[in-house]
Amino acid sequence: MGTNRCGHAPIALNCRQSVPSPLCDPRPQEPNLAAEPDTVHVSLGDRSYDILIADGILSAAADAAAPWFLRKFPGHVPHAAAIIADANVQAHAGRLQQSLAQAGWSATVLTVEPGETSKSLAQAAALYDRLVELNADRRTPVFAVGGGVVGDLAGFVATTFNRGLPFVQVPTTLLADVDSSVGGKVGINHPRAKNLIGAFHQPLGVLIDIACLRTLPQRELRSGLAEIVKYGVILDAGFFEWLERQVESVAGLEPAAVRHAIARSCRLKADVVEQDEFERSGLRAALNYGHTFAHAFEALAGYGELLHGEAVSIGMVCASRLAERLGRISPDITARQVELLKRCGLPTVVPGDLRNRESEILDCMRLDKKSEAGRLRFVLPSRLGAVELVSDVDHADVLAALDA
Amino acid sequence: MGTNRCGHAPIALNCRQSVPSPLCDPRPQEPNLAAEPDTVHVSLGDRSYDILIADGILSAAADAAAPWFLRKFPGHVPHAAAIIADANVQAHAGRLQQSLAQAGWSATVLTVEPGETSKSLAQAAALYDRLVELNADRRTPVFAVGGGVVGDLAGFVATTFNRGLPFVQVPTTLLADVDSSVGGKVGINHPRAKNLIGAFHQPLGVLIDIACLRTLPQRELRSGLAEIVKYGVILDAGFFEWLERQVESVAGLEPAAVRHAIARSCRLKADVVEQDEFERSGLRAALNYGHTFAHAFEALAGYGELLHGEAVSIGMVCASRLAERLGRISPDITARQVELLKRCGLPTVVPGDLRNRESEILDCMRLDKKSEAGRLRFVLPSRLGAVELVSDVDHADVLAALDA
Repeated sequence: MGTNRCGHAPIALNCRQSVPSPLCDPRPQEPNLAAEPDTVHVSLGDRSYDILIADGILSAAADAAAPWFLRKFPGHVPHAAAIIADANVQAHAGRLQQSLAQAGWSATVLTVEPGETSKSLAQAAALYDRLVELNADRRTPVFAVGGGVVGDLAGFVATTFNRGLPFVQVPTTLLADVDSSVGGKVGINHPRAKNLIGAFHQPLGVLIDIACLRTLPQRELRSGLAEIVKYGVILDAGFFEWLERQVESVAGLEPAAVRHAIARSCRLKADVVEQDEFERSGLRAALNYGHTFAHAFEALAGYGELLHGEAVSIGMVCASRLAERLGRISPDITARQVELLKRCGLPTVVPGDLRNRESEILDCMRLDKKSEAGRLRFVLPSRLGAVELVSDVDHADVLAALDA
Repeated sequence: MGTNRCGHAPIALNCRQSVPSPLCDPRPQEPNLAAEPDTVHVSLGDRSYDILIADGILSAAADAAAPWFLRKFPGHVPHAAAIIADANVQAHAGRLQQSLAQAGWSATVLTVEPGETSKSLAQAAALYDRLVELNADRRTPVFAVGGGVVGDLAGFVATTFNRGLPFVQVPTTLLADVDSSVGGKVGINHPRAKNLIGAFHQPLGVLIDIACLRTLPQRELRSGLAEIVKYGVILDAGFFEWLERQVESVAGLEPAAVRHAIARSCRLKADVVEQDEFERSGLRAALNYGHTFAHAFEALAGYGELLHGEAVSIGMVCASRLAERLGRISPDITARQVELLKRCGLPTVVPGDLRNRESEILDCMRLDKKSEAGRLRFVLPSRLGAVELVSDVDHADVLAALDA
């Protein structure tokens, strides 16, 4: 991507206008459990797919997935399926298995250990073995039930087994709902780098059952809210303002509010992915707002100490302060983010034990795969709802943004 | 794919007409070493690529590959590259490395052991480690120099490292020239099944240097001829007839003859792949003529005892005899294949030590991934240049075809 003389490049995103939601009325509404699912269509030519969002949709999973499957394999109805799920979500996997069984699909649950260490070649190899035992062929659908770890791992295995099995994402965390389930990134970790082994592979479709969020630990739920706030900051001021009115309804899992927050986030991410599916033009970099800082915080805190959304929350505040310092935005843009993130129950300042490791943070950021030849690049807001890629930022400004 | 009541399905291939080659004149011609490379364009939308065929093209590899690279990454010229090659083709890898160095691309040769056992997750993991050491990023091109094993392995690694590195196939065997370099199948083996872990991933382009064939063992050269004969039988009677006139010139590596044989074979395979890139419609099955038998022979003889092309040669004769038995073709179609394959120096009868293992051969064929629920299916000629997919073949007929 070319940069101008000032070292910044506008990220010319062509996103759909924010549609006024029924929830723009700040009065809480009654949840409508009987409603049709919200549908987000991701338009990628012959790799297009739908994301369906509803309360209880897992119980109708076969009805939802069968048309997707038939479009790809006309005339064939699957009789067998594999469900890859981590040990924490066995209840959800069981509900899915039962609903598939009612439609005559015999599904086997393959369980993996929760946590980032499952995104390994060894775990992928174990899943290949299980799929061989199941006599999986190119028409055997794989359902990934869990958070981002399971989605990435199961997606990678589905992509590479027999040159590609049909694959349905069933995210069960708010973070996976709005992040890893959209965009087709699948992968596993190399001992030296996260997500180093992977592919772009779009799913047949995505089923988001907001009922799964009711059993999610509060801290994980809040972590997902950080990415939702991010979409407002980078792409949609109207959505940010809606969140300012409704964030307690979302955090409280009021069905209509949480459905709208997820659907709007997925739509915004899909708009970006449709324009830069393979991460070539630089547009997709906009999604990394706050992430250059966040990746450094996560790496130095030790993975798992800070949840991803917590690190992103702090990272967004740092990035916004950096933009302020560079004269790109006024302080109230940062203040509104801090306020909203606090209402989500998210941290907004660098944790004490990282505050005196600033040179390590800088080193981490220089190694980030988004940096180029060690020069620091950041996605920074230019106003609410718009970001730019800014190159050659002075280390002194970065340090000041950490300190604020 | 639907089958009619007789249990056979025409494979309705829409192939380009055989273009009269300058070699239709049976008099041997002077090789034209200074000629432009032959180009076969594989048209697959944004995954389209060119196959360039010439004598000595490795010495101009950077000139050929740079435009491919620039089309994918406008404005970027690679400064580093990885060459994955097996220990048998270090001289060719060295020539490529030198020609890239002259253009300012610093290329590192990563050597793998020759042979099918290198198509393993362990070997892939070792290559990932090397690419990490080289700081390979998404713009680092990978060149695969070798036969089908290296092409499949390096292609898989390039597909999955960092979600896809640009990848150039440099086949050095006649079999790889006309088979694995076209069509985008990459993959590694699972202990329980060949090519079970893989993907469809088209290369940036393919460089076929016929100079590599001059150092190829005679037996390997002949193995490649079997696949060339196959293309004539399944898709192009005119090409088969040209081979009947010119096969000694091809086997003798007369440049113009071998270039035409390779270019026509690649064009014919590309015609099929363009219509069925992801092996969904069944069209691509036509390419498996002789292979249902061949895979069983290879598995039972012990991999490596029979070269792939040798097994395909015998398999084609068996399939043709089976078609005769089913009243689909006249005996002269088989006789002409036998005659041509013999002139290639290829075996045409089932080896003695497999002749009394007929029930094992049948079992192997039932396990073939092209069979459906254990029913035997074969690609059989209906005339010279055309094949059909035939289901529900009687075991007695198959046994008789083996015995002939």
